[in-house]
Amino acid sequence: MNCSPDRRSTTTQHTSLIHLKLAGFQLRWVTVVGDREEDITTALVRAMERSAFILVTGGLGPTGDDRTNAAAAKALGRPLRRDPRSWDVITGHLKKLKISMTPAIAKMADIPEGAERIDLVRPRAGYYIGDAEKPLFFLPGVPDEMADMLQSFVLPTLKEWFPEQIIMRSRLLRIFGLRESEIAHRLADLEEGYPDLSIGYFPRFPENHLAFAVQAPSERAADDILDEAAQAAVQRLGLHVYGQEDDTLEMVVARLLVETGHTLALAESCTGGLIGHLITNVPGSSGYFHRSVVTYSDTAKVTYLGVSPDLIAQHGAVSRQVTEAMVRGVHKESEASMALAVTGLAGPTGGTPETPVGTVFLALLRDRDLRVERFQFIGERQKIKLAAAYTALDWLRRAMIDESFFDGE
Amino acid sequence: MNCSPDRRSTTTQHTSLIHLKLAGFQLRWVTVVGDREEDITTALVRAMERSAFILVTGGLGPTGDDRTNAAAAKALGRPLRRDPRSWDVITGHLKKLKISMTPAIAKMADIPEGAERIDLVRPRAGYYIGDAEKPLFFLPGVPDEMADMLQSFVLPTLKEWFPEQIIMRSRLLRIFGLRESEIAHRLADLEEGYPDLSIGYFPRFPENHLAFAVQAPSERAADDILDEAAQAAVQRLGLHVYGQEDDTLEMVVARLLVETGHTLALAESCTGGLIGHLITNVPGSSGYFHRSVVTYSDTAKVTYLGVSPDLIAQHGAVSRQVTEAMVRGVHKESEASMALAVTGLAGPTGGTPETPVGTVFLALLRDRDLRVERFQFIGERQKIKLAAAYTALDWLRRAMIDESFFDGE
Repeated sequence: MNCSPDRRSTTTQHTSLIHLKLAGFQLRWVTVVGDREEDITTALVRAMERSAFILVTGGLGPTGDDRTNAAAAKALGRPLRRDPRSWDVITGHLKKLKISMTPAIAKMADIPEGAERIDLVRPRAGYYIGDAEKPLFFLPGVPDEMADMLQSFVLPTLKEWFPEQIIMRSRLLRIFGLRESEIAHRLADLEEGYPDLSIGYFPRFPENHLAFAVQAPSERAADDILDEAAQAAVQRLGLHVYGQEDDTLEMVVARLLVETGHTLALAESCTGGLIGHLITNVPGSSGYFHRSVVTYSDTAKVTYLGVSPDLIAQHGAVSRQVTEAMVRGVHKESEASMALAVTGLAGPTGGTPETPVGTVFLALLRDRDLRVERFQFIGERQKIKLAAAYTALDWLRRAMIDESFFDGE
Repeated sequence: MNCSPDRRSTTTQHTSLIHLKLAGFQLRWVTVVGDREEDITTALVRAMERSAFILVTGGLGPTGDDRTNAAAAKALGRPLRRDPRSWDVITGHLKKLKISMTPAIAKMADIPEGAERIDLVRPRAGYYIGDAEKPLFFLPGVPDEMADMLQSFVLPTLKEWFPEQIIMRSRLLRIFGLRESEIAHRLADLEEGYPDLSIGYFPRFPENHLAFAVQAPSERAADDILDEAAQAAVQRLGLHVYGQEDDTLEMVVARLLVETGHTLALAESCTGGLIGHLITNVPGSSGYFHRSVVTYSDTAKVTYLGVSPDLIAQHGAVSRQVTEAMVRGVHKESEASMALAVTGLAGPTGGTPETPVGTVFLALLRDRDLRVERFQFIGERQKIKLAAAYTALDWLRRAMIDESFFDGE
């Protein structure tokens, strides 16, 4: 991948691109090249001719298809040499894991002369060449390691190289519960009102993310426009905007649980544990998350939640009545102040005309307040599970910020 | 993205690339271009000059940054026209969802003259231009929609265009429980023994996937080499190879549960519901999966699993003793023939010298057979959860195929 500042952005799935975009760099071209050393060398030479800086990801590992180090050395016309800092980190890590050194692992420490290893603590490949005409960054192919280094090392370093050129700022808005076309419709006039503003759409099922980017004579001026535009967008999209920048829906729910002092118990059926999984992805969740009972079978609903077998026989497991009994059951047994239950039919089989695949019931109980609602999601099994779980998180969020939540239905 | 057959493959995160590779096409170059119409047009014109076929993803949606249709029309020198089949699918879908048509949505039906819509049923953008000098495919940017169309439409169509050129076959091996460097070490001589074989490494934490690709004078000859090489690899990697091609670990576990007639109950702590979520991703899981009790708090372990508070006080919640009590508790309450429990410390805080972050206990009970083991995982919270959940799935798999599983420790 090679990038130039001052160029227009790209809409893609790459974390790296979003990150660069948000930092004020705009990408115009990305090249993906195969594992052939000669091709990697050619791509690097070409990139050095046309770009202001070069960012390469992947090919730094121990396997036979990892050929970036050798290609980089050739493209730069420098020899490979064993980097002592890389060697120390790698051998230290192997020792910890009680693994022996192999020639394949050793070659990870052989990087071009003049290259500086980026992570001096963890065994993450990656180096920086700062003494060439243009800065070159070589990052690991593992997405989260790469994203980390991009944020913590590459962007600050680029800001030093290009202090003047970065007159672009941006902001990410995170939206749940509105279709992309509806968002575009509501924001149609916004881009017209701000000629320097561009809005990028990043669908992240079941969410939608919007990247607002603006160019202005100064950072201050850019931020002023962004503040105004973001505020105008929030006005048009309302509570559907759940967060900005790196927030996730589960992080926002976690923050609200901590702030309000609420605790949480779950009774999950069709989501199979996904809601509990999302909530426990947030560090510190043991402070407010007590339990989730995944009652996939009817017997489990009876045993753990005290749902009456007659109720299930009468209304079916996927029904308003059973969902309400589940939420009351888990609330009673736990000491949590809020309880949420979900039942549904994730498919692909088992649907009936009255209860088709994608039917999901949610119930939320807080003190004496109860809301139960039926949803109809579409798509395949995993999408139905995701839609149900994120809608449940969104209910938790809204219950804590919207006073009229329990009036609605 | 533009591709040529007969070229060498690339290691990347893109599903599309893996799919093409597995179908016998090898990619050498991929271009990612921004949302500027002019750049998209230039990239297309250049691609048509140098490639045997062209594959474009994204930019077909309703938002302002979706500019592929217009750019494609310009690059081909054809007008845009409203495609009646696209129009019918879109209006039918809007009607079903009770959404009104907007100009932004309508423009999704305006595609270059001669283009044929691919999906005539679902509202998925995507079309094929088969009456140009070279075949062009325009697919949606949504990854799973794109992967679907690639598999069901693009690859069969390409095989018609290039019946002779595809003399390459490949196979994906899926591996759990071995580091990439260890796999490379064990397979070091394999590539030497088969000069036409290439092995691509795709780390998919916590798994490793290997793509074996081979070129031969006929499909039959290629398959023979692949069979032999895959068998040799399985011999060197043993039970660590859990599946091939599209298998997932949870699908393999599901298949074994159905075959053996076993049923399953879970007691999850640090994984927060992730194991139940993975198991219920497989259609039909209600046939063998009864319940998962996510006992995040100590109280929940006592209430739902009958773990003695004294035992927790004496050994701590993250201990061999409590994990064993949990698995016995969930086994007793459920009618499932197998029960699995997991406790651990996902961090980032709460670690002690005796029980550092990443400590995880697994317990598996089947009839009278019990295995309990302590693991030490490294990395951040979500990685520890993933490593614990996949190790649990792997235990379930091994317990059903390896007679000595309960002897081991």
